[in-house]
Amino acid sequence: MIIIMKPNATEEAVRGVTREIESKGLKVHLSKGDQVTIVGVVGDKGLLRGVNFEVAEGVDKVVAVTESYKLANKKFHPEDSIIHVGNTTIGPGNLTIMAGPCAIENQEQLMQTAFAVKKSGANFLRGGAYKPRTSPYSFQGLEEEGLRYMKEAREATGLNVICEVTSEHAIESAVKYVDMLQIGARNMQNFELLKEAGRSGVPVLLKRGLSATIDEWLNAAEYIMSEGNENVVLCERGIRTFETATRNTLDISAVPVLRSRTHLPVIVDPSHATGVRSYVAPLAKCAIAAGADGLMIEVHPNPACALSDGPQSLTFEQFDRLTSELRPYAALSGRSF
Amino acid sequence: MIIIMKPNATEEAVRGVTREIESKGLKVHLSKGDQVTIVGVVGDKGLLRGVNFEVAEGVDKVVAVTESYKLANKKFHPEDSIIHVGNTTIGPGNLTIMAGPCAIENQEQLMQTAFAVKKSGANFLRGGAYKPRTSPYSFQGLEEEGLRYMKEAREATGLNVICEVTSEHAIESAVKYVDMLQIGARNMQNFELLKEAGRSGVPVLLKRGLSATIDEWLNAAEYIMSEGNENVVLCERGIRTFETATRNTLDISAVPVLRSRTHLPVIVDPSHATGVRSYVAPLAKCAIAAGADGLMIEVHPNPACALSDGPQSLTFEQFDRLTSELRPYAALSGRSF
Amino acid sequence: MIIIMKPNATEEAVRGVTREIESKGLKVHLSKGDQVTIVGVVGDKGLLRGVNFEVAEGVDKVVAVTESYKLANKKFHPEDSIIHVGNTTIGPGNLTIMAGPCAIENQEQLMQTAFAVKKSGANFLRGGAYKPRTSPYSFQGLEEEGLRYMKEAREATGLNVICEVTSEHAIESAVKYVDMLQIGARNMQNFELLKEAGRSGVPVLLKRGLSATIDEWLNAAEYIMSEGNENVVLCERGIRTFETATRNTLDISAVPVLRSRTHLPVIVDPSHATGVRSYVAPLAKCAIAAGADGLMIEVHPNPACALSDGPQSLTFEQFDRLTSELRPYAALSGRSF
Amino acid sequence: MIIIMKPNATEEAVRGVTREIESKGLKVHLSKGDQVTIVGVVGDKGLLRGVNFEVAEGVDKVVAVTESYKLANKKFHPEDSIIHVGNTTIGPGNLTIMAGPCAIENQEQLMQTAFAVKKSGANFLRGGAYKPRTSPYSFQGLEEEGLRYMKEAREATGLNVICEVTSEHAIESAVKYVDMLQIGARNMQNFELLKEAGRSGVPVLLKRGLSATIDEWLNAAEYIMSEGNENVVLCERGIRTFETATRNTLDISAVPVLRSRTHLPVIVDPSHATGVRSYVAPLAKCAIAAGADGLMIEVHPNPACALSDGPQSLTFEQFDRLTSELRPYAALSGRSF
Repeated sequence: MIIIMKPNATEEAVRGVTREIESKGLKVHLSKGDQVTIVGVVGDKGLLRGVNFEVAEGVDKVVAVTESYKLANKKFHPEDSIIHVGNTTIGPGNLTIMAGPCAIENQEQLMQTAFAVKKSGANFLRGGAYKPRTSPYSFQGLEEEGLRYMKEAREATGLNVICEVTSEHAIESAVKYVDMLQIGARNMQNFELLKEAGRSGVPVLLKRGLSATIDEWLNAAEYIMSEGNENVVLCERGIRTFETATRNTLDISAVPVLRSRTHLPVIVDPSHATGVRSYVAPLAKCAIAAGADGLMIEVHPNPACALSDGPQSLTFEQFDRLTSELRPYAALSGRSF
Repeated sequence: MIIIMKPNATEEAVRGVTREIESKGLKVHLSKGDQVTIVGVVGDKGLLRGVNFEVAEGVDKVVAVTESYKLANKKFHPEDSIIHVGNTTIGPGNLTIMAGPCAIENQEQLMQTAFAVKKSGANFLRGGAYKPRTSPYSFQGLEEEGLRYMKEAREATGLNVICEVTSEHAIESAVKYVDMLQIGARNMQNFELLKEAGRSGVPVLLKRGLSATIDEWLNAAEYIMSEGNENVVLCERGIRTFETATRNTLDISAVPVLRSRTHLPVIVDPSHATGVRSYVAPLAKCAIAAGADGLMIEVHPNPACALSDGPQSLTFEQFDRLTSELRPYAALSGRSF
Repeated sequence: MIIIMKPNATEEAVRGVTREIESKGLKVHLSKGDQVTIVGVVGDKGLLRGVNFEVAEGVDKVVAVTESYKLANKKFHPEDSIIHVGNTTIGPGNLTIMAGPCAIENQEQLMQTAFAVKKSGANFLRGGAYKPRTSPYSFQGLEEEGLRYMKEAREATGLNVICEVTSEHAIESAVKYVDMLQIGARNMQNFELLKEAGRSGVPVLLKRGLSATIDEWLNAAEYIMSEGNENVVLCERGIRTFETATRNTLDISAVPVLRSRTHLPVIVDPSHATGVRSYVAPLAKCAIAAGADGLMIEVHPNPACALSDGPQSLTFEQFDRLTSELRPYAALSGRSF
Repeated sequence: MIIIMKPNATEEAVRGVTREIESKGLKVHLSKGDQVTIVGVVGDKGLLRGVNFEVAEGVDKVVAVTESYKLANKKFHPEDSIIHVGNTTIGPGNLTIMAGPCAIENQEQLMQTAFAVKKSGANFLRGGAYKPRTSPYSFQGLEEEGLRYMKEAREATGLNVICEVTSEHAIESAVKYVDMLQIGARNMQNFELLKEAGRSGVPVLLKRGLSATIDEWLNAAEYIMSEGNENVVLCERGIRTFETATRNTLDISAVPVLRSRTHLPVIVDPSHATGVRSYVAPLAKCAIAAGADGLMIEVHPNPACALSDGPQSLTFEQFDRLTSELRPYAALSGRSF
């Protein structure tokens, strides 16, 4: 931690700050410049918890030197992680493809979709049983009934299955049926849910919040990991900006940024990022080119009648064409599916 | 609902759309312009749930005509609501002042603060027992012990007390101790929590999410209200933008915008909006001038040693000076405290 | 300047950085922590121009300690400036009210408006002769003809007049007719225009760019001032965010932030910030409460037929009512108009 | 244009609106729903210039049906344009690679870079002679001297050359030396500059403004085209968001969005978008995968000593490795360079 004093800070103010640091058993490195004095703190800054140098006399600003996430931090775990889920792994070498409907509507819709996406190369079936919807009057999901359909689809196809959970109660149900839990964008900082997902021990796909910085996202992953569950995969799904041509703005730079800051795998969801079917294919290719470990894509037997997010869903044919087009990109990035 | 066709949409495409609408028992108003055809839908658009005109052949875009929130909507409830909480009301005529520490640290800190803010004119004591913190290694709150201190402070001072809840479990505990529940920014779209708060019947202060539009915020209020709990107060606390001089950007326009769209009271939290102590006073005045029904302000006996958000907390003296300065602004806006 | 090394930076990397600094005649303060080494630079960092420590071996990040703007900086000019324009001053004690149409449409419209706003208390007439419009097919302004009407209006009413300039050519014309030049949001980083405005010697109102940080804004002011023209007034007019209920988001916090960083006066434009007539009055009050030195408000004889920005313009009656309502707020903030 | 009336709009208010429309010689289509009445306008809405229905009695909102840009609009020009510049073309089939230093520093630096990037496959040399810099105290460019070096480099290597222009004066000089003008992000809505670039007849690369929507960007292109110069290429270079891990956020979705809205070619600048050297390669691949027509990349003989934007510049070796890696991606997208 570095404390930058104001240009007009008195000697007494500087002494006040250094005294406070030393009283906690830490060391101080003082650097007096022509205009400002800088106080460097040497030692475990955890000892300074509850001390707010920002409001101390004469202090201009406080700069953090190290990140607050540890388990997710590449600095302390330089090798990229491989996460084992169901009958597969997510990470280096593999390109993971998760596909399926936004919401599970009925058994037939889900089973049909499962066989179709399996045939086109997906290794995960996605489908929402608990739907967080902006309006309470929109379709909210089939809940446990939906989870049962997921389990049936997995038994019939051999696909791994993933489902979003929106409450501790949903986690309790989901762990009985699915291979991987998804925490959605709106719950990225629902810390109680993160901790519960951590305690479940089941692999977790953590989507980025709509206005979460990458550092906040990694701290959210740290909540799961600090409960003993290191099987976390991150999913970029677009952030909120002023642009309205797409539902969100896919922050594709997040892929290389995460690669440099964390060892956890990263997948990209071009369907939610854009909200527009015709933009899904170019952005899926782009995710692979940027180095993503996988994709999450919405597929529906009849998008015009989907109960949720139809405009962004691909038909079976469109998805099949897409996976064919993706294979050479996967090969270029040293991955296969 | 209005469906705007593409310039090159065929007659057949237009017929496809109108047939779909009429098959659901709704009426169509067709408007053929020089360049585009517009299809107006007349009747209850709820009947079109699960139909996605965006992906239908020839459709350019779909424009919603009415808001999805009903109970929170001023159009259907033109008179401003007065919410009864504890021994007071929030809404027209009153200026509600909620003050207290970000986090409850111990009994003495809370009790001291309660007496101080009461003396300066606050009628609510705020204090966090469950703290949503970006890092799992930051102080997470005293939980039920904190709630007990809140109840004691309320008995000792006559202040109404409000506490943030972050899980269904926290709601169960909180309803035994406090007058009002707070749903924080990070949980604004934690829909399970909103529904549970709705079912509790206890008045709820709903903070705006960091990147929530005003319409999403009103839909979140609708989640609480649709469970039968109409005692909802909104709290603007800053949104996330590119500006870094303040922690968030206080969207002061939200006050008049909400005034025109909803009958629910609106209060403003200048402490979280800015994250900087010296900006709290000007923004508090500004909130009253913009027409807010109240303020939520962080006050701490010793901000330099606060376990959470010290840099933005006022000392007792600063808070006392502030409330004196606020009285003439309250008078100008026809309110008292 | 502080250079933070990576945790795994070698001794050689640290020496590389320090050697570079010392070779330019500056001193180094080295602070070796448990995890990272920090290199403080002591002396005039201008000597390091053209050295990019970010890309040097072993460097994690570079933190600036001092702002790049000097003339606009409160640290070197602690007293708030008073800017003399025409027959008045902008700054402490005064509340400056600039009012008038978005675009000058004809002589009658402007003259009528001038008399009306004068009567209601404005001391500046605003009006656009050169209109930056999103589409080339929108009304672009009367240019020099409009400037002549401005001068006539000033002679008839005694109001000071201000006009936006969008090119060096427009500045050449405008200086013959008006008391103050306005640089609009879209041109805030049109540095050639800023320098030309600086060279003109005429007082300048510099609007904030739609996505400009406060520091960029002050650097833009510095461009004008570094040409020898210190008569700069800043105007907050809303920034671009994801919210669509208002045209822009008024960043009211900018007023106290600027007060702490610069000695230049600050005024607020609630008309452009919101784009909605009914939000102008609450936000005008709020600007005064936040400590602004003045307001810029759009007024039009017949907003329904304005050639530009009608929806946000006040009628004469609305403006007159507003100024009456503003007087007690001005009095509270120790200002008069 | 569609005008949506408020739920409580009177018959008289609806008549007022329709009368106004009909008085301009346009036709009205009225659609009376259960809750609201919608007024459709049929005919050339240019006739309604200067009428602001938003402020008319009883009006809730006004929805535009058609875009304001015409020449840039794909609806009226469905085939993708090919832009001829110097000895090459930008558009379908080709992958254009523009490379060079952010700022031209001296003849040797530029010439060295020109030969290096030519050898690695670039067909354009970029280099700034007029640098828009946030601070007036940063290096501002060599101006005409720099342009002369560009011309020399072009003669020596056969590369086409492109240079940013920041004023009408700079355009006058640049047209004598370069093949293509660049309008930078900060000047995207400097409409006088756009018009002047249009009148020059020289091909223009138009960068997206930091907070410009795609529609505003296309309207800016329209300014150039409406002066008779249809040789416009668009360049996505990152938008401003809350994320701070990268200098800007590359909006990669803009590539497919533009592909659907305009016939103009689109290139991507990953150097300015991220500001970080190690992110340039993944994002360059990603741009090609998304369908971009080209790339603009910063290359410098010695990035550690660059006078501008060193941290994001590639060395010659890094650039050479990158172009090799890009070739298979170009092949996949049916392009060559």
